[in-house]
Amino acid sequence: MPSTIGRILKLTTFGESHGAALGGVVDGFPAGITIDMDFITKEMARRRPGSTKLGTTRKEGDEPRILSGIYKGRSTGTPIGFIIENTSQRSSDYSSIEHLYRPGHADLGYDMRYGFRDPRGGGRSSGRETACRVFGGALAKLLLRESGISVDAGVVEVGGIKAEDYVWTPPFPGPLNAPQNRNLERMIEAVEKAKSEGESVGGIIECHATGMIPGLGDPVFDKLDATISHAVMSIGAVKGIEFGAGFAVAGMKGSENNDAMRISDGRIVFLTNNAGGILGGISTGADIIFRVAVKPTPSIAKEQLTVTDSMEESTIEVHGRHDPAIVPRAVSVVEAMTALVIADHLLIKRAYDR
Amino acid sequence: MPSTIGRILKLTTFGESHGAALGGVVDGFPAGITIDMDFITKEMARRRPGSTKLGTTRKEGDEPRILSGIYKGRSTGTPIGFIIENTSQRSSDYSSIEHLYRPGHADLGYDMRYGFRDPRGGGRSSGRETACRVFGGALAKLLLRESGISVDAGVVEVGGIKAEDYVWTPPFPGPLNAPQNRNLERMIEAVEKAKSEGESVGGIIECHATGMIPGLGDPVFDKLDATISHAVMSIGAVKGIEFGAGFAVAGMKGSENNDAMRISDGRIVFLTNNAGGILGGISTGADIIFRVAVKPTPSIAKEQLTVTDSMEESTIEVHGRHDPAIVPRAVSVVEAMTALVIADHLLIKRAYDR
Amino acid sequence: MPSTIGRILKLTTFGESHGAALGGVVDGFPAGITIDMDFITKEMARRRPGSTKLGTTRKEGDEPRILSGIYKGRSTGTPIGFIIENTSQRSSDYSSIEHLYRPGHADLGYDMRYGFRDPRGGGRSSGRETACRVFGGALAKLLLRESGISVDAGVVEVGGIKAEDYVWTPPFPGPLNAPQNRNLERMIEAVEKAKSEGESVGGIIECHATGMIPGLGDPVFDKLDATISHAVMSIGAVKGIEFGAGFAVAGMKGSENNDAMRISDGRIVFLTNNAGGILGGISTGADIIFRVAVKPTPSIAKEQLTVTDSMEESTIEVHGRHDPAIVPRAVSVVEAMTALVIADHLLIKRAYDR
Amino acid sequence: MPSTIGRILKLTTFGESHGAALGGVVDGFPAGITIDMDFITKEMARRRPGSTKLGTTRKEGDEPRILSGIYKGRSTGTPIGFIIENTSQRSSDYSSIEHLYRPGHADLGYDMRYGFRDPRGGGRSSGRETACRVFGGALAKLLLRESGISVDAGVVEVGGIKAEDYVWTPPFPGPLNAPQNRNLERMIEAVEKAKSEGESVGGIIECHATGMIPGLGDPVFDKLDATISHAVMSIGAVKGIEFGAGFAVAGMKGSENNDAMRISDGRIVFLTNNAGGILGGISTGADIIFRVAVKPTPSIAKEQLTVTDSMEESTIEVHGRHDPAIVPRAVSVVEAMTALVIADHLLIKRAYDR
Repeated sequence: MPSTIGRILKLTTFGESHGAALGGVVDGFPAGITIDMDFITKEMARRRPGSTKLGTTRKEGDEPRILSGIYKGRSTGTPIGFIIENTSQRSSDYSSIEHLYRPGHADLGYDMRYGFRDPRGGGRSSGRETACRVFGGALAKLLLRESGISVDAGVVEVGGIKAEDYVWTPPFPGPLNAPQNRNLERMIEAVEKAKSEGESVGGIIECHATGMIPGLGDPVFDKLDATISHAVMSIGAVKGIEFGAGFAVAGMKGSENNDAMRISDGRIVFLTNNAGGILGGISTGADIIFRVAVKPTPSIAKEQLTVTDSMEESTIEVHGRHDPAIVPRAVSVVEAMTALVIADHLLIKRAYDR
Repeated sequence: MPSTIGRILKLTTFGESHGAALGGVVDGFPAGITIDMDFITKEMARRRPGSTKLGTTRKEGDEPRILSGIYKGRSTGTPIGFIIENTSQRSSDYSSIEHLYRPGHADLGYDMRYGFRDPRGGGRSSGRETACRVFGGALAKLLLRESGISVDAGVVEVGGIKAEDYVWTPPFPGPLNAPQNRNLERMIEAVEKAKSEGESVGGIIECHATGMIPGLGDPVFDKLDATISHAVMSIGAVKGIEFGAGFAVAGMKGSENNDAMRISDGRIVFLTNNAGGILGGISTGADIIFRVAVKPTPSIAKEQLTVTDSMEESTIEVHGRHDPAIVPRAVSVVEAMTALVIADHLLIKRAYDR
Repeated sequence: MPSTIGRILKLTTFGESHGAALGGVVDGFPAGITIDMDFITKEMARRRPGSTKLGTTRKEGDEPRILSGIYKGRSTGTPIGFIIENTSQRSSDYSSIEHLYRPGHADLGYDMRYGFRDPRGGGRSSGRETACRVFGGALAKLLLRESGISVDAGVVEVGGIKAEDYVWTPPFPGPLNAPQNRNLERMIEAVEKAKSEGESVGGIIECHATGMIPGLGDPVFDKLDATISHAVMSIGAVKGIEFGAGFAVAGMKGSENNDAMRISDGRIVFLTNNAGGILGGISTGADIIFRVAVKPTPSIAKEQLTVTDSMEESTIEVHGRHDPAIVPRAVSVVEAMTALVIADHLLIKRAYDR
Repeated sequence: MPSTIGRILKLTTFGESHGAALGGVVDGFPAGITIDMDFITKEMARRRPGSTKLGTTRKEGDEPRILSGIYKGRSTGTPIGFIIENTSQRSSDYSSIEHLYRPGHADLGYDMRYGFRDPRGGGRSSGRETACRVFGGALAKLLLRESGISVDAGVVEVGGIKAEDYVWTPPFPGPLNAPQNRNLERMIEAVEKAKSEGESVGGIIECHATGMIPGLGDPVFDKLDATISHAVMSIGAVKGIEFGAGFAVAGMKGSENNDAMRISDGRIVFLTNNAGGILGGISTGADIIFRVAVKPTPSIAKEQLTVTDSMEESTIEVHGRHDPAIVPRAVSVVEAMTALVIADHLLIKRAYDR
């Protein structure tokens, strides 16, 4: 199901960067939920290009138009179809590189997979596709909100500068979508410097799901961490994910890594959270915590070695209105994919509650 | 589909550590493939407890019995059912901890999810479940072998000691399943030390798929890296995955991270492989390379703080025949899950080749 | 997956009768197929209200707008999103029956399932939803055409009048979409009579898939007949399906029902086709033949006994522009669902051809 | 998913008639359900060859062995694996027909689909496969029983003799599994006559689900009738299905076919049940009623025209211990598939209940 994700709460998406419109369908959404359009609009705005002075100056009209599944302001339980019209395409920007494979881009892969490709603005592989994910994620968040679950993410490293001594008090405003911390200025400078050099930088996003209900996740293959990984790793530019202590477990002993348990106010609490809130693929009630690695924007102004689709060597410089860092705008996409997965597990669990 | 993974090549598994048997079904496997039982037996042996002097002395009879789908030594295209009888259970080992949640274990999660649990040896969450994955993976490898694709993994870090200057010449024999390298002795010592102290250590496994066919992967949700992540992150004890440059992208510039392309012998080659062989979620033909973080065995002899299933505080020491490091035995499981995913994508791609 | 059907070729739909628009996504459609818009338009026209003088005078703007997945007139392999705007709603027609359950309609079921319902024009359960099916079916037919497979249906009984001595030479023009036959005039009269009486009539549609490729179908659960049945029985108003000899097998002996085989021109031919072209759930190469029962339009002008959604007894007369028989317009929908299923099986089989 | 059926309650099966064993996995079964082994054994016995004096004298050891998912007599929520060993194969019976396509059998289809086939006893296409379905159905019935839902079927026509004036008081004992009725003796004689002539006869099974919960079914594709049709039409030998008035709707008027509603004891009741308990694909609370057509056993002793797998014309007589009518033994299989589908919908609905 390449364009559909989820088991009973499903998001299906379609659309290319420079086609008529993008859109999709949210299916399996419960009936009777009040659809807070202000909230959805705000979520969409967080992802939109031009939403931060650090990013592209390209403007996209990201107004989703809901076509079905809602009556008198509430969901009806039937599929919620939506479209986002494309209005600001400049297809001519891309004609010069139609037959060149841009390094770090999906151009080559699509030709190998489909033998035929819409080259305008990256076509289906464009980051613009994530607008549909954020729309779906906004609906999922409305559902989670009813159960007291929040999903928030922020940038904790960019251009090699790590956020230090940060406190997790989302949401994180500002151009970087990063938590307040000692290095925030240096992080911003790293992005600005890359921009001025025609370069780009990568970074790391941290995501927390709080107010978690224990018991979400379906071993042995649809574990909570496995399905979150599937969803989040399907975001373009994401190259890695780690839960809790993550790769640091390689240097830890069992006695250090195991999270000790105590009772507090009649509930189980963990003295540490190296597990990232998940044991055996099932939520424990502790916060879900994970981090994802986001690569530098592949479109850079510097000359790069590449090849053409007729197997000739060439060079390329990718000019245009590109973000020097994908990281800040990817924050809302990571949240959206995580919210969709958790909401799906929540519904599945309800099917089995007695 | 909690116990089924794959889209058209599917593995379904069942079985608890101390039940009558484990087993499963491989469905959608092509007809006419010669089933090399020697190969399957060898793959199973690589995962088996007691296969390395570093691990548990527990012996498990991991002989899979194939019940269907094969006629005169070849696959018939119908589902391949198999079971692995449980013969070496010592259920009494576990009676003392039936009502205690072992730190780092799935006990708590299962109670939260199902409200009822088979406590013997971890039940469904036992690492023994992975025997079924290795069986399915062995079949997938037979399929990939026909297309010239190999999947191999090895330990590149354990107990905080990194393999240095290693050459990738799999398979990697020896107790650690690690490539030959400057620190191999120190890596082995780290595990032995943990064992002698009643402790455990974590590590990192690297996996390569070579001989790759370009064009495998199905954007936007069933990208090759997303589906491998789902499959690999569903292995117990795995806490992170990163492809190519992975988390190091956070400190790289676009010009460093993008893999330049040239033509060699009429084929596209990449001068670096920071992408790990995948662009836009589709294989490029370069080797797939990823690493996974494996946590220390949660069962340790040291006293730990925990709680009971009736919400009382307690302490626990987990004695028994446990591996001081899961990493060496997880190598074949990582390969198996990866082989299953790639074989599934290979079949899907064939459906669309013209 | 309530709003998605198919295994690798998938149709997802959304939309209510009186919402902003209907639409959907065709996913898994192969790249490089020329999209014949004239053909798609003609297919849509066959289903459209007002397409026959026997039916409703209600006009619907059924122009599908394709939003993605097509570039320079050919499919790109990415999802094909489409919408059909709703332009001719008269919501006020329905306000008087918002709280009445119309007999034979889905109103009651939706309230039981979702607890909340869009009552305008039947909402999601409106026959208008089938426009999206016909769009998807038209794409599937383009795919089947490349392999020489045709899917055609026609009305063979309506209002109790059976088509007699008909020859199968599709397509079947005229108001009934019925094959030329001895009783054609009587069939038309039966519908006209029902219309004049404020009544409605049911009927039977026969469907043939010709030029079949042997070997389509996936036992034991995704047999060709089982998946066609799923798809066709999901059409509103369809109450039964039978393949080949169908229910008549109850009176046949094995020696009568078994289709004898001979060789002709080097190919296997069947002397009869009681199997309807399917044995063991797999196509044999003979024509697929099945019939479906379509109930009378539930909306009738006569007074009927019913209840309200607050559990009070009442009566109802459903006035409006309703078809006196659903059968003629359901012909293209039956074809569409069948074409989608066969195309899906065709792609799956290709995945396994060597 | 050829060998898996269901959305969250899933049955996966494997096994050939003359392989080592058949078996399968029931996944998504709720935890904490008491597993009534006596009931399961009785259900298995109803399907078993030799269970009726009218059928084959072949004995099969149909004892299912449960391997997982149950602890202390209750389900744990993890997959329930089971096998049924094959003990009574006489492979030599079939050697003479290895290269002949038996008319009415799946032999040809399997060769076309897979290019390779286990010919012994029909291999995967053997009716013996349905033992796994009955096992899965027995578990589903245990689940439905908790909600007060029963699923029962009986033979209402065989060899052209219709049950007349029968009362629906299941279960129906006796050799035919038919309800007591005026023609019962004649029905039995029809089967006995066919048997004595080396012939076989077809028939019709009626199935009722009573105690139904309203609101089960998921439009627009996973409607209750569509998914029951999928499941039931996947049973070998079933050639048609009709709900409620079924094919008779072709001769009915809207005013006759619509089921009028009244209130009785505060609940909605229908004065007729032409809908078969389903409107718009959703259960109304009325009994689900449908009928299925079952073809005559294709294995008959009479000489028939056929071809070989090397494209030569031939004749065949199929001797062996075959049932003269499949209908009586198919009764429990129809119930099983229906119970699985309804239980799956029941769980899905719970996910959305608030």
